[in-house]
Amino acid sequence: MSTYLERLGTRTKATASVLCAGIDPMPDALPAGFSRDLVGIERFCEILIEVCAPRVAAVKPNLAFFEAFGSEGMAALERLRARVPAGVLVVGDAKRGDVGTTAARQASALFDMLGCDAVTVNPYVGGEALEPLIGRADRFAYVLCRTSNPGAAELQGLEVAGGAEDAPSEPLYARVARRACGWGPGGTVGLVVGATAPLELERTRGIAPQLAMLVPGIGAQGGEIESVIRHGPATQPPAGAQPGGGLLVNVSRGIAGAAAGAEGAAAAETALAEAAAEWAARLRIGP
Amino acid sequence: MSTYLERLGTRTKATASVLCAGIDPMPDALPAGFSRDLVGIERFCEILIEVCAPRVAAVKPNLAFFEAFGSEGMAALERLRARVPAGVLVVGDAKRGDVGTTAARQASALFDMLGCDAVTVNPYVGGEALEPLIGRADRFAYVLCRTSNPGAAELQGLEVAGGAEDAPSEPLYARVARRACGWGPGGTVGLVVGATAPLELERTRGIAPQLAMLVPGIGAQGGEIESVIRHGPATQPPAGAQPGGGLLVNVSRGIAGAAAGAEGAAAAETALAEAAAEWAARLRIGP
Repeated sequence: MSTYLERLGTRTKATASVLCAGIDPMPDALPAGFSRDLVGIERFCEILIEVCAPRVAAVKPNLAFFEAFGSEGMAALERLRARVPAGVLVVGDAKRGDVGTTAARQASALFDMLGCDAVTVNPYVGGEALEPLIGRADRFAYVLCRTSNPGAAELQGLEVAGGAEDAPSEPLYARVARRACGWGPGGTVGLVVGATAPLELERTRGIAPQLAMLVPGIGAQGGEIESVIRHGPATQPPAGAQPGGGLLVNVSRGIAGAAAGAEGAAAAETALAEAAAEWAARLRIGP
Repeated sequence: MSTYLERLGTRTKATASVLCAGIDPMPDALPAGFSRDLVGIERFCEILIEVCAPRVAAVKPNLAFFEAFGSEGMAALERLRARVPAGVLVVGDAKRGDVGTTAARQASALFDMLGCDAVTVNPYVGGEALEPLIGRADRFAYVLCRTSNPGAAELQGLEVAGGAEDAPSEPLYARVARRACGWGPGGTVGLVVGATAPLELERTRGIAPQLAMLVPGIGAQGGEIESVIRHGPATQPPAGAQPGGGLLVNVSRGIAGAAAGAEGAAAAETALAEAAAEWAARLRIGP
């Protein structure tokens, strides 16, 4: 049984890129020729997955964009997940986290039913409650640390007092990173840090040199690529031992949005393929 | 257009109880005579809703317990939601929260597709990002403040520095309550505070005398009822102006578990009805 970090390392080496293609489809953003409903969404995502798969380390479907269509939307996501080729990692972006008995059902939904390799989780309930989501040796959970939204600092930037574990006074996001280093059995926990907060990203890397990072916020949200490539890769094992240092950089609108002006499926496919190739090159890692 | 707090007040007055029936079905916990799969889950929940509806202020389905069955589980939840009689409030327990564009799709999923009157949300991303979930005048969001799990204090209990808004140095959960008082347009935000933390509940009430509380953790999780009845109801408007002070006390296993030893649907129905009536009486509010 391989670990997620091993599979991610293998895939990152094969594609020489840390690109993760976000799958966050909005009906109103579909190109001409796609119906602005779930049928159009599914057809568009089929193409998106097909053209991205050879070029990316992972795909990251955001569950909310399918849940917005109810159970039929989730059925579409299940069909789309089955189309992701073996070897391409699937990160279920669900931001779950709840008391233990509920977290166990969330883990069943995401890992067992949807077949995600990794998920995103919210740390507010604490590591104890997240155990079902962070405790599987062959799966993985990215803990929200510093998110990419404009108001992220309202709570994440609060200064928390120094603690018993040699923790200095530091912002909440930094403490979350520090705590997450001790969560799970080892090698099953990473961090979400937005590219829109480069200073926080650098500081987080200093606190958690061994943890894999999932970095959203590049492109449409305004994040710069340079600091992500510099500080995103882990420098110590387990993630630091893998090609790319366990880094995944998510691009959603930067790829899907490239098809906005396309007329019909063939033109959309071409535009998506060019954008995916371009982002894979910009996020190239390795010799 | 009525507000959630008005509808909750009307319902609380009609039932003279602040009981909220949790719907968190586990296959292994079903009584004899129910198949231990989604079919059995749906049948059990139909009975649970039918016998609870006349006695409760609200029902609270926990989405994870249906998501664990994939899209078919969500379809079952959609059918169950349609069986909740008008007047009984539906609280979608989903613990959502994400950057704004995603939170908007979460709001569509929970409010528009599933028809929830209220939802539970995780505050970690900050009030700005939660706007789609907390900004609808006729809906409502309960913000996680102090959760009921054993490890809740790991982050929620961290001491955060005093702030510019006359906030003293205080635990994170207290700051969340303080911030939540300013979130949304007014009357659309409440708090989740576990009955397992009576001191924190009292302190939270002091910080946010106007906010409605949803209190889990009574019964199976060990929370005591007395402090919840004393400090749970809001003392100032908007929630404080309503019967019951906007309080909802969730009971899940205390009702559903009463059917554990029942043989068949009829016996289960009787046991559930007795447990619901008993909890409604214990959570009686009013003259």
